[in-house]
Amino acid sequence: MKKTITTFVLTFILLTTALPFQTIAAERVDTIIRGGTVVTMDNASRVIENGAVAIRGERLVAVGTSAEIARQYTARRIINANGKVVMPGLINTHTHVPMVLFRGIADDLLLPEWLHQYIFPAEAKNVDEAFVRWGTRLGCLEMIRGGTTTYVDMYYFEDAVAQETASAGMRAVLGETVLDFPAPDNKTWEAALSYTEKFVQKWQGHALIVPAIAPHAPYTVSTEHLKQAHAFSQRFGVPLVIHVAEDPSETKTIMERYKASSVAYLESLNFLDPRVIAAHMVWPTDDDIKTLAAREVGVAHCPQSNMKLAAGAAPVPQMLKAGVNVGLGTDGAASNNDLNMWEEIDTAAKLHKLISKDPRTLNAKDALQLATIGGARAIHLGQEIGSLETGKRADVIIVGMSSVHQTPLYNVYSHLVYATKASDVETVMINGKLVMQNRRVLTLDEGTVRAKANWYAARIRQSLSQK
Amino acid sequence: MKKTITTFVLTFILLTTALPFQTIAAERVDTIIRGGTVVTMDNASRVIENGAVAIRGERLVAVGTSAEIARQYTARRIINANGKVVMPGLINTHTHVPMVLFRGIADDLLLPEWLHQYIFPAEAKNVDEAFVRWGTRLGCLEMIRGGTTTYVDMYYFEDAVAQETASAGMRAVLGETVLDFPAPDNKTWEAALSYTEKFVQKWQGHALIVPAIAPHAPYTVSTEHLKQAHAFSQRFGVPLVIHVAEDPSETKTIMERYKASSVAYLESLNFLDPRVIAAHMVWPTDDDIKTLAAREVGVAHCPQSNMKLAAGAAPVPQMLKAGVNVGLGTDGAASNNDLNMWEEIDTAAKLHKLISKDPRTLNAKDALQLATIGGARAIHLGQEIGSLETGKRADVIIVGMSSVHQTPLYNVYSHLVYATKASDVETVMINGKLVMQNRRVLTLDEGTVRAKANWYAARIRQSLSQK
Repeated sequence: MKKTITTFVLTFILLTTALPFQTIAAERVDTIIRGGTVVTMDNASRVIENGAVAIRGERLVAVGTSAEIARQYTARRIINANGKVVMPGLINTHTHVPMVLFRGIADDLLLPEWLHQYIFPAEAKNVDEAFVRWGTRLGCLEMIRGGTTTYVDMYYFEDAVAQETASAGMRAVLGETVLDFPAPDNKTWEAALSYTEKFVQKWQGHALIVPAIAPHAPYTVSTEHLKQAHAFSQRFGVPLVIHVAEDPSETKTIMERYKASSVAYLESLNFLDPRVIAAHMVWPTDDDIKTLAAREVGVAHCPQSNMKLAAGAAPVPQMLKAGVNVGLGTDGAASNNDLNMWEEIDTAAKLHKLISKDPRTLNAKDALQLATIGGARAIHLGQEIGSLETGKRADVIIVGMSSVHQTPLYNVYSHLVYATKASDVETVMINGKLVMQNRRVLTLDEGTVRAKANWYAARIRQSLSQK
Repeated sequence: MKKTITTFVLTFILLTTALPFQTIAAERVDTIIRGGTVVTMDNASRVIENGAVAIRGERLVAVGTSAEIARQYTARRIINANGKVVMPGLINTHTHVPMVLFRGIADDLLLPEWLHQYIFPAEAKNVDEAFVRWGTRLGCLEMIRGGTTTYVDMYYFEDAVAQETASAGMRAVLGETVLDFPAPDNKTWEAALSYTEKFVQKWQGHALIVPAIAPHAPYTVSTEHLKQAHAFSQRFGVPLVIHVAEDPSETKTIMERYKASSVAYLESLNFLDPRVIAAHMVWPTDDDIKTLAAREVGVAHCPQSNMKLAAGAAPVPQMLKAGVNVGLGTDGAASNNDLNMWEEIDTAAKLHKLISKDPRTLNAKDALQLATIGGARAIHLGQEIGSLETGKRADVIIVGMSSVHQTPLYNVYSHLVYATKASDVETVMINGKLVMQNRRVLTLDEGTVRAKANWYAARIRQSLSQK
């Protein structure tokens, strides 16, 4: 009897205090991902064991322990991430996504042979808007499957790339290529600028797509046209994507033409500013590095592409030390030959140890930063993406940590950089929407995309065999 | 009526010619794998579209087109490899397999700190025969899942490694480590030699296991003991596994002690011969390379380990040009941090392009050779494994080629080297027996092995927190 009274009193206290408190305080959100190791990549490098994130609409409304989030929020959808890592989606800061249809078409060649015997003829004969659409679908499929949530593109028909990327639910900075030669989409400089203007006006302000202008490189675009591209970027307030200082032959060409390094030449045009995303940057001088830091230029480091094309090893530790924002990129699959960011992270960490002759260079956390918050800053979206922080876009991935090649686990950064593979990514959310769940991509039909890619490959193979 | 007669006559002709011919000529084998692209890695680099291999007992009895094999053989078991690649299993020429239990325990450190603060204490407190058994199980599981069929080990308690490897159905050259310091299994040099003798006598002649002696390195084993280890290898006719010329500090030490490079020093002891498997070989001189070729020393190139530990980049193109047999190795997972040969192949191809400043260096076919027939020759098993040829051991893998990251396909070598991942390996046969079928490993229980590995990790973590 005494026990019953005690139970009754206790229940009464609970009902009148805790429960109403819960009901009043618990805020409704769309999704809670809970129970995993939350690797925030925030400024404090917080790693929250048994952590959780709460998402409402397109944004993160809270990041904390599972207990903290449970106290404050209830959700329509709860995703259990027990034993898994919850982290920001990876950011591929440089690619040419539709070129995935040329994956492995030619390798192990000198650049002029590769370009003139394979890539240019293949592009001239095959690249049209439909090609770009299917290539973008295939590329988005591969990137989503590997946990990439944002990418930076530089190709042609970028309006089609934008449509397909938005439809796949991915975030991207999409640079329409402008250069001094006829391109598959636009045959003159004026036509290209006009296309880019329409493209920018159509997409600016979109939740997922950031339109951009992409003058190809200092050696393929005249001084006058570089100035026009830069003015365009300023006028519309859009990013400017460009290849800079990729290999010694570029350095030689620019030095001969303009008596300056690529970076110094661009600086002399007042071209460099916080809207520029410069890909490769393998050969900056010490002075160039200072310029890049001062002008807040973002750098897209592509370690595997630079190795495969024998371009060199970018001075990434030196750039980071000087305060340059550096991200990682895969480059196009025609040269690299995949869009796998995990391998870029792993390679970056190892390459810079080799080059600096010091195994402490670019440790696991530093390497992972390049692919997340570092990449976000390099593409000038550091306020919106790249880390799990309240108010940022909900670009979140859940990574399994119990595969054989990840067993056992001592240190989460080490495992993410040196042991985890793209195939360990299980679930991908971009801008608050699930695009892959338990390895099933929800926004694209894999069978259809693969079949069409094989159809294109047959056509491309035939086009190359005809003279 | 006329038609019926014609049909009857045709049937009669077929029955009296083709059918009896088939019955008489068709030889019975155990397994036929047919319909795939057979990448033989033989001397002629044959790639057979719609190819097949026939297997009886432990060996390949025929390699040809599916039509040829169908005419000559019938089989108890037919495996359809349509749309897939059929190729020799990969050969990991250097690892320390039980160290997989230390995967990622410490990274990004200078070698002395890594060794003395982490690896040596962790080994002293944890490595016993049971540890080695569970480590070997976990390592074999990872290797089988990635299509590795043969590996070369250097660790302690190799008798336990041998038991577990044979039980997993894998092929291995297993070197019991002997060195001038007390080891987890043997506390003196004499005890180690005696253990190794028993180990060799027990396993020599086994279908899967090749026992070996493994003096650790020229700087950890005295001149007298190196001579004894070499004499042991000669007396029993077993391979000798050793680390040689791994990093500049070794070169310096050996030069100070013996006034010679590591290779020249070993050559002066008449140590180098066609039984030696030398791991790393990052710093041979031009003369050393000639010596290695003349003495038919096999070299295990570990590109990722050498990068991660900042040891350097081995002169692989130069060694290959001089006729040295070079294979690829992952090194132990405590340093690398996985046993993934596909990533080593990809990294090797890219690293040597970077170092040689020529994208034509180590093309895709060359790189794949390192991991197959090159590796077989480097470990002195070139007559038995490394390619799909009549009479060789049936170490065969079936690799899926239709994943998103492999789509589309233009060139099979390019895709195997630059796009294929360990997770694309579907089926693995070693010595005529299936050890993995459609990604299910048949010889080990994955759940049990992972659980035990996690149990060890908890114990190891605790042991390191105690002084």
